[in-house]
Amino acid sequence: MRVSRRGAVDPFIVMDVMEQARTLEAAGRSIIHMEVGQPGTPAPAGARAALARAMEAGPLGYTVALGLPELRKGIADLYRRWYGVELDPNRVVVTAGSSSAFLLAFTALFEAGDRVALGEPGYPSYRQILRALSLEPVGIPTRDENRLQPVPEDLAGVADLAGLIVASPGNPSGTMLSQEALAALTGHCAERAIAFISDEIYHGLDYGTRAVSALEITDDVYVINSFSKYFSMTGWRLGWLVVPEAHVRPIERLAQNMFICPPHASQIAALTALDCMEELEANRIVYAENRRLMLEGLPKAGFTRFAPPDGAFYVYADVSDLTDDSLAFAAEILREAGVAVTPGLDFDPVRGARTLRFSYARATEDIVEGLRRLEAFMAARRG
Amino acid sequence: MRVSRRGAVDPFIVMDVMEQARTLEAAGRSIIHMEVGQPGTPAPAGARAALARAMEAGPLGYTVALGLPELRKGIADLYRRWYGVELDPNRVVVTAGSSSAFLLAFTALFEAGDRVALGEPGYPSYRQILRALSLEPVGIPTRDENRLQPVPEDLAGVADLAGLIVASPGNPSGTMLSQEALAALTGHCAERAIAFISDEIYHGLDYGTRAVSALEITDDVYVINSFSKYFSMTGWRLGWLVVPEAHVRPIERLAQNMFICPPHASQIAALTALDCMEELEANRIVYAENRRLMLEGLPKAGFTRFAPPDGAFYVYADVSDLTDDSLAFAAEILREAGVAVTPGLDFDPVRGARTLRFSYARATEDIVEGLRRLEAFMAARRG
Repeated sequence: MRVSRRGAVDPFIVMDVMEQARTLEAAGRSIIHMEVGQPGTPAPAGARAALARAMEAGPLGYTVALGLPELRKGIADLYRRWYGVELDPNRVVVTAGSSSAFLLAFTALFEAGDRVALGEPGYPSYRQILRALSLEPVGIPTRDENRLQPVPEDLAGVADLAGLIVASPGNPSGTMLSQEALAALTGHCAERAIAFISDEIYHGLDYGTRAVSALEITDDVYVINSFSKYFSMTGWRLGWLVVPEAHVRPIERLAQNMFICPPHASQIAALTALDCMEELEANRIVYAENRRLMLEGLPKAGFTRFAPPDGAFYVYADVSDLTDDSLAFAAEILREAGVAVTPGLDFDPVRGARTLRFSYARATEDIVEGLRRLEAFMAARRG
Repeated sequence: MRVSRRGAVDPFIVMDVMEQARTLEAAGRSIIHMEVGQPGTPAPAGARAALARAMEAGPLGYTVALGLPELRKGIADLYRRWYGVELDPNRVVVTAGSSSAFLLAFTALFEAGDRVALGEPGYPSYRQILRALSLEPVGIPTRDENRLQPVPEDLAGVADLAGLIVASPGNPSGTMLSQEALAALTGHCAERAIAFISDEIYHGLDYGTRAVSALEITDDVYVINSFSKYFSMTGWRLGWLVVPEAHVRPIERLAQNMFICPPHASQIAALTALDCMEELEANRIVYAENRRLMLEGLPKAGFTRFAPPDGAFYVYADVSDLTDDSLAFAAEILREAGVAVTPGLDFDPVRGARTLRFSYARATEDIVEGLRRLEAFMAARRG
């Protein structure tokens, strides 16, 4: 049977690393997982208890397509709590993870063939989802002096853009855009009728400076967020999208047809998760300690070139002094040190041959052990 | 901000009916819901208990993109149990409802601009999802003498088809394709390199003759199914897709990027649901009794023109002797009789002005009361 060209998306390179790690673990090796992009913690206890009760109280059938009204209100309240922004709950669209939010956003905004820009390094699925929807991803190489975030100057020479996706804190870099830097980008896009999509999935996970939402600057944006990271609910596949008021009805019709509704059980859990701030802040304090250990331990091991991450749970290191083949280097680190890390090629198809991403999402004892192994490995490698 | 043309999909007409029903109920009226397309029963008790345990046992993070291996195996086993078909679990792709299965299938199979045929009347979202993906839906009017299912003859004059979607049992008709009829369609498509997509979401809900899976005929098909209907898990958003072996890798890459994974909690529940056949068969016996009541009561009320449904939980009636405005007629039935039904226009944009869909998915006492009301209303209308 036929296979479409647009369905032929690239594989994740990190999958090779994960497969090798599984093989080594199956053979009895201890592996520290610094390749994973998700919390090791479960959904908050209160959220799980709420779902356990709800499962026995009703059938949990379809909800309305935009999500439970009280959850939309709870998410809107979060914008007041986190940013001091008054947000109409009617503009909040609950989605099956940020993944569905991207599918909805790209479908509502763009025609087949449209060109959509994204900063490199960046989340690899942006590019692949765009291709799957017959859109053209346009990689924008970002610069070290801009802490790997795009600036208007980077877009100046790029013709015919229909959209721009920005992530702050970024994955893999963990660096954030200041209010000024974000406003410069939204302003640039508004003047040129370029749709602005702000991926804020790591909001809440910042360590010093609060992340800025694009909604603090303008209502004329699509903002995407999720319960996966701060709320520790990756496998529950629940996220949200905030759209301009005029886009709510078109998005509702698309969501009705493309998804019917987000998972009801996950919506119940998420509604309570919004009130579990004590447990979630305790998680964040663990990440903050892990980050402190990484910023101290990675340079000690010999990984010295990275911008200190403002948020998320990643460090993205330039290892061009050590290799020009990050895939082989990641395999070597896994084999020799027993630490799984992600080669940069997933995030930046060109410069990623000389970068690695280290995740510090797991338990602190794993971070301590991982750093110990990396230090010993690098010392032995220097000979 | 820009809105795309492909994002401008049609609204569901049934939503108007549901909104009117809500308004009447808010004003204190009793309404019988024969418009809903979902069971009133919850997920099986065993499935809910399994999830309650799992929530306390582990973090329920991301699963692999194709779904939990034991769930894929359990679904493959179902093909042996239901159809006597040996199915390699590696060909089973667990999805976030049949909705995500359609998104994956259409993306993997078709390029922007491709033409995909679907029988009319049919599930309205086929058309809308195709449009959202920049594909061209081609409605194929089906005939009463074929019990509202397409036959190769219907496709003969239709040029440049890249795909055909068939549903048996159908929604809204509930009619099924025999093995011969299904084989005639798959054969027609195979000869013309038309991708064949078999929507089998109502399998398990049949009342006399067993539904035939396209996998009993050929491996060169995409088969879509779901835990929503027979397994009574609509709000859990879990379904599956069976693809030819050569399509597994491309589909896996698409699924990784477009969805990351299906909801983990729902996968846990579904795995146990596969073993809850006693409870699920008890549900089916209720539908069988409801169907018996409908086949007796609808003609008594004056709705005489329909093909007895083989499966699902719908009766699709030709009401051309009563109206040529099914939307107004449905509104009249709601207002006068207190019974919500679906105008046919959602399923057939042309002939649906003279049809209604009656659902019998709810409790038997509701069906009895609904039929009583319909009979009284129609008697009064005749004067």
